[in-house]
Amino acid sequence: MTPLPVKALVFDVFGTVVDWRTSVAREVAAAARTIGVETDGLALADAWRGEYAPAMQRVARGELPWTVIDDLHRAALDALLPRFDLAGLDEAARAHLNRAWHRLNPWPDSVAGLARLKRRFVIGTLSNGNVALLVNMAKHAALPWDVIFSAESFRAYKPDPRTYDGAASMLRLEPGEVMLVAAHNNDLAAAQARGLATAFVPRLTEYGPAQEKDLHPEGDWDVVAPDFETLADTLLHGS
Amino acid sequence: MTPLPVKALVFDVFGTVVDWRTSVAREVAAAARTIGVETDGLALADAWRGEYAPAMQRVARGELPWTVIDDLHRAALDALLPRFDLAGLDEAARAHLNRAWHRLNPWPDSVAGLARLKRRFVIGTLSNGNVALLVNMAKHAALPWDVIFSAESFRAYKPDPRTYDGAASMLRLEPGEVMLVAAHNNDLAAAQARGLATAFVPRLTEYGPAQEKDLHPEGDWDVVAPDFETLADTLLHGS
Repeated sequence: MTPLPVKALVFDVFGTVVDWRTSVAREVAAAARTIGVETDGLALADAWRGEYAPAMQRVARGELPWTVIDDLHRAALDALLPRFDLAGLDEAARAHLNRAWHRLNPWPDSVAGLARLKRRFVIGTLSNGNVALLVNMAKHAALPWDVIFSAESFRAYKPDPRTYDGAASMLRLEPGEVMLVAAHNNDLAAAQARGLATAFVPRLTEYGPAQEKDLHPEGDWDVVAPDFETLADTLLHGS
Repeated sequence: MTPLPVKALVFDVFGTVVDWRTSVAREVAAAARTIGVETDGLALADAWRGEYAPAMQRVARGELPWTVIDDLHRAALDALLPRFDLAGLDEAARAHLNRAWHRLNPWPDSVAGLARLKRRFVIGTLSNGNVALLVNMAKHAALPWDVIFSAESFRAYKPDPRTYDGAASMLRLEPGEVMLVAAHNNDLAAAQARGLATAFVPRLTEYGPAQEKDLHPEGDWDVVAPDFETLADTLLHGS
Protein backbone atom coordinates (compact mmCIF):
# COMPACT_ATOMS: atom_id res chain seq x y z
CA MET A 1 0.00 0.00 0.00
CA THR A 2 1.39 3.42 -0.89
CA PRO A 3 1.05 5.75 2.08
CA LEU A 4 -1.88 8.11 1.85
CA PRO A 5 -1.27 11.77 2.67
CA VAL A 6 -3.95 11.51 5.34
CA LYS A 7 -3.63 13.89 8.29
CA ALA A 8 -7.07 13.60 9.87
CA LEU A 9 -9.56 10.80 10.34
CA VAL A 10 -13.23 11.59 10.74
CA PHE A 11 -15.57 8.88 11.90
CA ASP A 12 -19.15 8.02 11.35
CA VAL A 13 -20.38 7.28 14.88
CA PHE A 14 -23.73 5.43 15.09
CA GLY A 15 -22.89 1.84 14.19
CA THR A 16 -19.27 2.53 13.30
CA VAL A 17 -17.93 3.56 16.72
CA VAL A 18 -20.81 2.62 19.01
CA ASP A 19 -23.31 -0.24 19.18
CA TRP A 20 -26.59 1.67 19.27
CA ARG A 21 -28.84 -1.39 19.03
CA THR A 22 -27.98 -3.27 22.20
CA SER A 23 -27.30 -0.04 24.12
CA VAL A 24 -30.74 1.40 23.34
CA ALA A 25 -32.49 -1.95 23.87
CA ARG A 26 -31.05 -2.22 27.36
CA GLU A 27 -32.29 1.22 28.30
CA VAL A 28 -35.73 0.53 26.82
CA ALA A 29 -36.03 -2.62 28.91
CA ALA A 30 -34.97 -0.74 32.03
CA ALA A 31 -37.50 2.03 31.38
CA ALA A 32 -40.25 -0.53 30.78
CA ARG A 33 -39.54 -2.25 34.10
CA THR A 34 -40.05 1.03 35.97
CA ILE A 35 -43.72 0.93 34.93
CA GLY A 36 -44.10 -2.86 35.24
CA VAL A 37 -44.09 -3.60 31.52
CA GLU A 38 -42.22 -6.30 29.62
CA THR A 39 -41.43 -5.23 26.07
CA ASP A 40 -39.08 -6.15 23.24
CA GLY A 41 -36.27 -3.63 23.63
CA LEU A 42 -34.45 -4.75 20.50
CA ALA A 43 -37.59 -4.38 18.42
CA LEU A 44 -38.15 -0.87 19.73
CA ALA A 45 -34.49 0.01 19.09
CA ASP A 46 -34.83 -1.23 15.51
CA ALA A 47 -38.09 0.64 14.95
CA TRP A 48 -36.66 3.81 16.50
CA ARG A 49 -33.56 3.63 14.33
CA GLY A 50 -35.82 2.95 11.36
CA GLU A 51 -37.36 6.40 11.74
CA TYR A 52 -33.94 8.06 11.56
CA ALA A 53 -33.21 8.24 7.84
CA PRO A 54 -36.75 9.24 6.82
CA ALA A 55 -36.77 12.02 9.41
CA MET A 56 -33.45 13.43 8.17
CA GLN A 57 -34.73 13.20 4.61
CA ARG A 58 -37.73 15.33 5.57
CA VAL A 59 -35.30 17.96 6.86
CA ALA A 60 -33.15 17.67 3.73
CA ARG A 61 -36.22 18.13 1.49
CA GLY A 62 -37.30 21.18 3.45
CA GLU A 63 -40.51 19.55 4.74
CA LEU A 64 -39.18 20.13 8.26
CA PRO A 65 -37.08 23.12 9.33
CA TRP A 66 -33.57 22.40 10.59
CA THR A 67 -34.05 19.99 13.49
CA VAL A 68 -31.33 18.26 15.52
CA ILE A 69 -31.31 14.51 16.04
CA ASP A 70 -32.27 14.80 19.72
CA ASP A 71 -35.56 16.31 18.62
CA LEU A 72 -36.08 13.91 15.71
CA HIS A 73 -35.43 11.05 18.12
CA ARG A 74 -37.94 12.40 20.61
CA ALA A 75 -40.73 12.78 18.07
CA ALA A 76 -40.12 9.24 16.84
CA LEU A 77 -40.06 7.88 20.39
CA ASP A 78 -43.37 9.49 21.32
CA ALA A 79 -44.93 8.03 18.19
CA LEU A 80 -43.57 4.53 18.87
CA LEU A 81 -44.22 4.10 22.59
CA PRO A 82 -47.92 3.08 22.38
CA ARG A 83 -47.09 0.24 20.01
CA PHE A 84 -44.69 -1.15 22.64
CA ASP A 85 -47.10 -0.75 25.58
CA LEU A 86 -45.00 2.12 26.90
CA ALA A 87 -47.43 5.03 26.60
CA GLY A 88 -47.36 5.15 30.41
CA LEU A 89 -43.82 6.56 30.50
CA ASP A 90 -44.02 10.11 31.85
CA GLU A 91 -42.20 13.17 30.56
CA ALA A 92 -39.12 12.69 32.74
CA ALA A 93 -38.84 9.03 31.76
CA ARG A 94 -39.20 9.87 28.07
CA ALA A 95 -36.60 12.62 28.27
CA HIS A 96 -34.20 10.25 30.01
CA LEU A 97 -34.84 7.43 27.53
CA ASN A 98 -34.36 9.79 24.60
CA ARG A 99 -30.91 10.54 25.93
CA ALA A 100 -30.05 6.84 25.74
CA TRP A 101 -28.53 7.93 22.41
CA HIS A 102 -26.04 10.00 24.44
CA ARG A 103 -25.03 6.89 26.40
CA LEU A 104 -24.28 4.37 23.66
CA ASN A 105 -21.52 1.88 24.33
CA PRO A 106 -18.52 1.51 22.03
CA TRP A 107 -17.63 -1.66 20.14
CA PRO A 108 -14.91 -3.54 22.04
CA ASP A 109 -12.08 -2.31 19.77
CA SER A 110 -13.21 1.33 19.43
CA VAL A 111 -11.51 3.06 22.36
CA ALA A 112 -8.18 1.27 22.07
CA GLY A 113 -8.03 1.81 18.31
CA LEU A 114 -8.92 5.50 18.58
CA ALA A 115 -6.31 6.06 21.30
CA ARG A 116 -3.61 4.64 19.01
CA LEU A 117 -4.79 6.57 15.96
CA LYS A 118 -4.93 9.81 17.96
CA ARG A 119 -1.17 9.70 18.46
CA ARG A 120 -0.57 10.16 14.73
CA PHE A 121 -3.73 11.74 13.35
CA VAL A 122 -6.30 14.34 14.25
CA ILE A 123 -9.37 12.23 15.03
CA GLY A 124 -12.89 13.57 14.99
CA THR A 125 -16.51 12.68 14.59
CA LEU A 126 -18.42 13.36 11.38
CA SER A 127 -21.84 12.33 12.52
CA ASN A 128 -25.46 13.21 12.05
CA GLY A 129 -25.74 13.26 15.84
CA ASN A 130 -25.97 16.73 17.34
CA VAL A 131 -23.06 18.30 19.20
CA ALA A 132 -24.40 17.75 22.73
CA LEU A 133 -25.17 14.12 21.95
CA LEU A 134 -21.66 13.51 20.63
CA VAL A 135 -19.98 15.35 23.51
CA ASN A 136 -21.98 13.49 26.14
CA MET A 137 -21.37 10.18 24.37
CA ALA A 138 -17.63 10.83 24.33
CA LYS A 139 -17.68 11.42 28.10
CA HIS A 140 -19.77 8.29 28.65
CA ALA A 141 -17.74 6.01 26.40
CA ALA A 142 -14.29 7.59 26.85
CA LEU A 143 -13.94 8.39 23.15
CA PRO A 144 -10.83 10.59 22.88
CA TRP A 145 -11.91 12.89 20.03
CA ASP A 146 -9.78 15.87 19.08
CA VAL A 147 -12.75 17.57 17.45
CA ILE A 148 -16.50 17.11 17.14
CA PHE A 149 -17.95 17.64 13.68
CA SER A 150 -21.69 17.25 13.56
CA ALA A 151 -24.38 17.76 10.97
CA GLU A 152 -25.36 20.56 13.36
CA SER A 153 -22.03 22.29 12.62
CA PHE A 154 -23.05 22.56 8.97
CA ARG A 155 -26.85 22.52 9.29
CA ALA A 156 -26.96 19.66 6.83
CA TYR A 157 -27.16 15.91 7.22
CA LYS A 158 -24.83 13.40 5.63
CA PRO A 159 -24.69 12.53 2.77
CA ASP A 160 -25.01 16.25 1.95
CA PRO A 161 -21.68 17.39 0.43
CA ARG A 162 -21.56 20.32 2.85
CA THR A 163 -20.74 17.93 5.69
CA TYR A 164 -17.67 16.35 4.05
CA ASP A 165 -16.52 19.64 2.53
CA GLY A 166 -17.09 21.43 5.81
CA ALA A 167 -14.96 19.07 7.88
CA ALA A 168 -12.01 19.37 5.48
CA SER A 169 -12.41 23.14 5.27
CA MET A 170 -12.54 23.66 9.03
CA LEU A 171 -9.43 21.51 9.41
CA ARG A 172 -7.80 23.59 6.64
CA LEU A 173 -6.87 20.39 4.85
CA GLU A 174 -7.33 19.23 1.29
CA PRO A 175 -10.18 16.69 1.01
CA GLY A 176 -7.65 13.94 0.23
CA GLU A 177 -5.89 14.62 3.52
CA VAL A 178 -9.05 13.65 5.39
CA MET A 179 -10.24 10.05 5.63
CA LEU A 180 -13.78 9.07 6.51
CA VAL A 181 -14.02 5.89 8.55
CA ALA A 182 -17.46 4.30 8.35
CA ALA A 183 -19.32 1.01 8.49
CA HIS A 184 -21.67 2.18 5.75
CA ASN A 185 -20.93 2.02 2.05
CA ASN A 186 -23.28 4.88 1.16
CA ASP A 187 -21.51 7.28 3.55
CA LEU A 188 -18.13 6.33 2.09
CA ALA A 189 -19.40 6.77 -1.47
CA ALA A 190 -20.59 10.29 -0.68
CA ALA A 191 -17.28 11.15 1.00
CA GLN A 192 -15.25 9.73 -1.90
CA ALA A 193 -17.30 11.81 -4.34
CA ARG A 194 -16.07 14.89 -2.45
CA GLY A 195 -12.44 13.74 -2.63
CA LEU A 196 -12.02 12.31 0.86
CA ALA A 197 -10.03 9.15 1.50
CA THR A 198 -12.10 6.22 2.75
CA ALA A 199 -11.84 3.38 5.24
CA PHE A 200 -14.53 0.73 5.56
CA VAL A 201 -14.85 -1.01 8.91
CA PRO A 202 -17.81 -3.37 8.62
CA ARG A 203 -19.87 -3.87 11.76
CA LEU A 204 -21.50 -7.19 11.01
CA THR A 205 -24.07 -7.13 13.81
CA GLU A 206 -24.94 -3.43 13.92
CA TYR A 207 -28.48 -4.34 12.88
CA GLY A 208 -28.48 -7.65 14.73
CA PRO A 209 -27.43 -11.18 13.83
CA ALA A 210 -29.56 -11.26 10.67
CA GLN A 211 -27.96 -8.14 9.18
CA GLU A 212 -27.91 -8.25 5.40
CA LYS A 213 -26.39 -4.92 4.36
CA ASP A 214 -22.92 -3.39 4.65
CA LEU A 215 -21.33 -6.79 5.22
CA HIS A 216 -18.85 -6.21 2.39
CA PRO A 217 -17.13 -3.28 0.68
CA GLU A 218 -19.18 -2.06 -2.27
CA GLY A 219 -16.73 0.53 -3.54
CA ASP A 220 -13.04 1.08 -4.11
CA TRP A 221 -12.21 2.14 -0.55
CA ASP A 222 -8.65 3.02 0.35
CA VAL A 223 -8.62 0.78 3.39
CA VAL A 224 -10.81 -2.08 4.55
CA ALA A 225 -10.28 -3.30 8.10
CA PRO A 226 -12.31 -5.60 10.36
CA ASP A 227 -11.96 -3.35 13.42
CA PHE A 228 -10.25 -0.18 14.69
CA GLU A 229 -7.21 -2.02 16.05
CA THR A 230 -6.52 -3.43 12.60
CA LEU A 231 -7.21 -0.02 11.09
CA ALA A 232 -4.56 1.41 13.41
CA ASP A 233 -2.12 -1.34 12.41
CA THR A 234 -2.68 -0.51 8.75
CA LEU A 235 -2.50 3.27 9.03
CA LEU A 236 0.34 3.42 11.55
CA HIS A 237 2.52 0.61 10.25
CA GLY A 238 1.25 0.04 6.73
CA SER A 239 0.73 -3.65 7.46
CA MET B 1 -20.33 29.90 48.02
CA THR B 2 -23.61 28.34 46.91
CA PRO B 3 -22.99 25.76 44.22
CA LEU B 4 -23.62 27.00 40.72
CA PRO B 5 -25.62 24.73 38.41
CA VAL B 6 -22.72 24.79 35.99
CA LYS B 7 -22.36 21.74 33.74
CA ALA B 8 -19.90 22.99 31.13
CA LEU B 9 -16.90 25.29 31.20
CA VAL B 10 -15.86 27.11 28.04
CA PHE B 11 -12.50 28.81 27.95
CA ASP B 12 -11.07 31.80 26.25
CA VAL B 13 -7.78 30.48 24.89
CA PHE B 14 -5.26 33.16 23.80
CA GLY B 15 -3.86 34.52 27.04
CA THR B 16 -6.17 32.53 29.30
CA VAL B 17 -4.97 28.99 28.52
CA VAL B 18 -1.82 29.64 26.53
CA ASP B 19 1.00 32.18 26.69
CA TRP B 20 0.98 33.55 23.16
CA ARG B 21 3.57 36.28 23.77
CA THR B 22 6.65 34.23 24.70
CA SER B 23 5.63 31.36 22.42
CA VAL B 24 5.37 33.57 19.34
CA ALA B 25 8.50 35.57 20.26
CA ARG B 26 10.55 32.37 20.40
CA GLU B 27 9.38 31.30 16.94
CA VAL B 28 10.02 34.77 15.52
CA ALA B 29 13.59 34.70 16.83
CA ALA B 30 14.12 31.23 15.36
CA ALA B 31 12.78 32.32 11.96
CA ALA B 32 15.00 35.41 12.01
CA ARG B 33 18.10 33.32 12.69
CA THR B 34 17.43 31.22 9.58
CA ILE B 35 18.07 34.33 7.47
CA GLY B 36 20.85 35.70 9.67
CA VAL B 37 18.81 38.48 11.27
CA GLU B 38 18.62 39.52 14.92
CA THR B 39 15.22 41.01 15.77
CA ASP B 40 13.08 41.75 18.80
CA GLY B 41 10.74 38.77 18.90
CA LEU B 42 8.70 40.08 21.80
CA ALA B 43 8.15 43.39 20.03
CA LEU B 44 6.96 41.61 16.90
CA ALA B 45 4.69 39.36 18.97
CA ASP B 46 3.17 42.43 20.63
CA ALA B 47 2.73 44.26 17.33
CA TRP B 48 1.23 41.15 15.70
CA ARG B 49 -1.21 40.68 18.56
CA GLY B 50 -2.01 44.37 18.36
CA GLU B 51 -3.44 43.86 14.86
CA TYR B 52 -5.82 41.19 16.13
CA ALA B 53 -8.73 43.17 17.59
CA PRO B 54 -8.82 45.79 14.81
CA ALA B 55 -8.86 43.04 12.17
CA MET B 56 -11.77 41.24 13.84
CA GLN B 57 -13.60 44.53 14.16
CA ARG B 58 -13.27 45.08 10.41
CA VAL B 59 -14.94 41.70 9.91
CA ALA B 60 -17.63 42.51 12.48
CA ARG B 61 -18.39 45.82 10.74
CA GLY B 62 -18.64 44.11 7.37
CA GLU B 63 -15.60 45.90 5.93
CA LEU B 64 -14.05 42.46 5.40
CA PRO B 65 -15.97 39.31 4.48
CA TRP B 66 -15.87 36.45 6.99
CA THR B 67 -12.19 35.67 7.45
CA VAL B 68 -10.63 33.17 9.86
CA ILE B 69 -7.85 34.17 12.25
CA ASP B 70 -5.21 32.20 10.33
CA ASP B 71 -5.79 34.52 7.39
CA LEU B 72 -6.03 37.68 9.51
CA HIS B 73 -2.77 36.66 11.18
CA ARG B 74 -1.08 36.13 7.84
CA ALA B 75 -2.08 39.50 6.43
CA ALA B 76 -0.84 41.21 9.59
CA LEU B 77 2.42 39.25 9.51
CA ASP B 78 3.18 40.19 5.91
CA ALA B 79 2.54 43.83 6.75
CA LEU B 80 4.79 43.76 9.83
CA LEU B 81 7.82 41.82 8.59
CA PRO B 82 9.63 44.70 6.84
CA ARG B 83 9.56 46.81 10.02
CA PHE B 84 11.40 43.97 11.80
CA ASP B 85 13.99 43.40 9.04
CA LEU B 86 12.30 40.13 8.14
CA ALA B 87 11.05 40.88 4.62
CA GLY B 88 13.53 38.22 3.47
CA LEU B 89 11.46 35.36 4.88
CA ASP B 90 10.14 33.31 1.98
CA GLU B 91 6.66 31.89 1.53
CA ALA B 92 7.38 28.62 3.30
CA ALA B 93 8.97 30.41 6.26
CA ARG B 94 6.05 32.82 6.51
CA ALA B 95 3.50 30.01 6.37
CA HIS B 96 5.39 28.15 9.08
CA LEU B 97 5.75 31.23 11.27
CA ASN B 98 2.05 32.05 10.86
CA ARG B 99 1.28 28.66 12.32
CA ALA B 100 3.24 29.58 15.46
CA TRP B 101 -0.26 30.43 16.73
CA HIS B 102 -1.09 26.70 16.42
CA ARG B 103 1.90 25.86 18.63
CA LEU B 104 1.40 28.13 21.63
CA ASN B 105 2.51 26.79 24.98
CA PRO B 106 0.15 26.53 27.94
CA TRP B 107 0.61 28.36 31.23
CA PRO B 108 2.16 25.99 33.78
CA ASP B 109 -1.17 25.26 35.53
CA SER B 110 -3.35 24.91 32.43
CA VAL B 111 -3.07 21.22 31.56
CA ALA B 112 -3.28 19.91 35.12
CA GLY B 113 -6.22 22.15 35.94
CA LEU B 114 -8.11 21.21 32.78
CA ALA B 115 -7.55 17.51 33.40
CA ARG B 116 -9.13 17.81 36.84
CA LEU B 117 -12.02 19.94 35.62
CA LYS B 118 -12.70 17.51 32.76
CA ARG B 119 -13.61 14.79 35.26
CA ARG B 120 -16.64 16.74 36.45
CA PHE B 121 -17.49 19.15 33.64
CA VAL B 122 -17.68 19.29 29.89
CA ILE B 123 -14.71 21.49 28.99
CA GLY B 124 -14.38 23.31 25.71
CA THR B 125 -12.81 26.23 23.96
CA LEU B 126 -14.76 29.39 23.14
CA SER B 127 -12.14 31.21 21.18
CA ASN B 128 -11.76 33.54 18.26
CA GLY B 129 -9.13 31.14 16.94
CA ASN B 130 -10.28 29.04 14.00
CA VAL B 131 -11.04 25.34 14.38
CA ALA B 132 -7.81 24.05 12.80
CA LEU B 133 -5.73 26.36 14.96
CA LEU B 134 -7.46 25.20 18.13
CA VAL B 135 -7.28 21.51 17.20
CA ASN B 136 -3.60 21.70 16.32
CA MET B 137 -2.86 23.68 19.49
CA ALA B 138 -4.63 21.07 21.60
CA LYS B 139 -2.44 18.35 20.07
CA HIS B 140 0.70 20.45 20.59
CA ALA B 141 -0.07 21.47 24.17
CA ALA B 142 -1.99 18.36 25.32
CA LEU B 143 -5.13 20.35 26.09
CA PRO B 144 -7.82 17.74 26.80
CA TRP B 145 -10.87 19.53 25.35
CA ASP B 146 -14.17 17.72 25.07
CA VAL B 147 -15.34 20.13 22.38
CA ILE B 148 -13.94 22.92 20.23
CA PHE B 149 -16.13 26.00 19.91
CA SER B 150 -14.65 28.65 17.66
CA ALA B 151 -15.81 31.94 16.25
CA GLU B 152 -15.65 29.95 13.00
CA SER B 153 -18.43 27.68 14.31
CA PHE B 154 -20.73 30.70 14.50
CA ARG B 155 -19.15 32.94 11.85
CA ALA B 156 -18.96 35.71 14.43
CA TYR B 157 -16.20 36.91 16.72
CA LYS B 158 -16.46 37.39 20.45
CA PRO B 159 -17.89 39.54 21.97
CA ASP B 160 -20.74 38.96 19.47
CA PRO B 161 -23.66 37.43 21.42
CA ARG B 162 -23.97 34.66 18.83
CA THR B 163 -20.78 33.08 20.15
CA TYR B 164 -21.93 32.77 23.79
CA ASP B 165 -25.49 31.86 22.81
CA GLY B 166 -24.23 29.38 20.25
CA ALA B 167 -22.05 27.47 22.67
CA ALA B 168 -24.90 27.06 25.18
CA SER B 169 -27.33 26.11 22.43
CA MET B 170 -25.06 23.48 20.88
CA LEU B 171 -24.51 21.99 24.34
CA ARG B 172 -28.30 22.06 24.85
CA LEU B 173 -27.76 23.81 28.16
CA GLU B 174 -29.25 26.92 29.67
CA PRO B 175 -26.83 29.86 29.54
CA GLY B 176 -26.47 29.74 33.33
CA GLU B 177 -25.30 26.13 33.10
CA VAL B 178 -22.28 27.28 31.07
CA MET B 179 -19.38 29.17 32.62
CA LEU B 180 -16.91 31.23 30.62
CA VAL B 181 -13.38 31.15 32.00
CA ALA B 182 -11.30 34.07 30.80
CA ALA B 183 -8.43 36.36 31.71
CA HIS B 184 -10.23 39.32 30.12
CA ASN B 185 -12.90 41.38 31.82
CA ASN B 186 -14.53 42.46 28.56
CA ASP B 187 -15.06 38.85 27.43
CA LEU B 188 -16.62 38.00 30.80
CA ALA B 189 -18.88 41.04 30.68
CA ALA B 190 -20.21 40.03 27.27
CA ALA B 191 -20.78 36.45 28.45
CA GLN B 192 -22.53 37.59 31.62
CA ALA B 193 -24.81 39.81 29.55
CA ARG B 194 -25.98 36.64 27.76
CA GLY B 195 -26.61 34.83 31.05
CA LEU B 196 -23.46 32.73 31.28
CA ALA B 197 -21.68 32.15 34.58
CA THR B 198 -18.22 33.69 34.77
CA ALA B 199 -14.79 32.85 36.14
CA PHE B 200 -11.92 35.33 36.00
CA VAL B 201 -8.41 33.91 35.98
CA PRO B 202 -6.04 36.86 35.64
CA ARG B 203 -2.87 36.26 33.67
CA LEU B 204 -0.67 39.01 35.00
CA THR B 205 2.08 38.75 32.39
CA GLU B 206 0.06 37.93 29.28
CA TYR B 207 1.18 41.25 27.80
CA GLY B 208 4.57 41.16 29.49
CA PRO B 209 5.89 42.37 32.84
CA ALA B 210 4.54 45.90 32.37
CA GLN B 211 0.95 44.76 31.79
CA GLU B 212 -1.58 47.30 33.01
CA LYS B 213 -4.96 45.83 32.12
CA ASP B 214 -6.95 42.86 33.35
CA LEU B 215 -4.92 42.67 36.54
CA HIS B 216 -8.07 42.75 38.67
CA PRO B 217 -11.73 41.75 38.35
CA GLU B 218 -13.81 44.61 37.00
CA GLY B 219 -17.19 42.93 37.31
CA ASP B 220 -19.23 40.75 39.61
CA TRP B 221 -17.78 37.47 38.42
CA ASP B 222 -18.99 34.21 39.98
CA VAL B 223 -15.48 32.94 40.61
CA VAL B 224 -12.06 34.62 40.71
CA ALA B 225 -9.06 32.31 40.87
CA PRO B 226 -5.34 32.92 40.35
CA ASP B 227 -4.84 29.82 38.18
CA PHE B 228 -6.61 26.73 36.84
CA GLU B 229 -5.57 24.52 39.74
CA THR B 230 -7.24 26.89 42.17
CA LEU B 231 -10.24 27.14 39.85
CA ALA B 232 -10.50 23.35 40.00
CA ASP B 233 -10.26 23.44 43.81
CA THR B 234 -13.08 25.97 43.92
CA LEU B 235 -15.41 24.31 41.43
CA LEU B 236 -14.78 20.71 42.53
CA HIS B 237 -14.62 21.19 46.29
CA GLY B 238 -16.19 24.59 46.85
CA SER B 239 -13.10 25.76 48.72
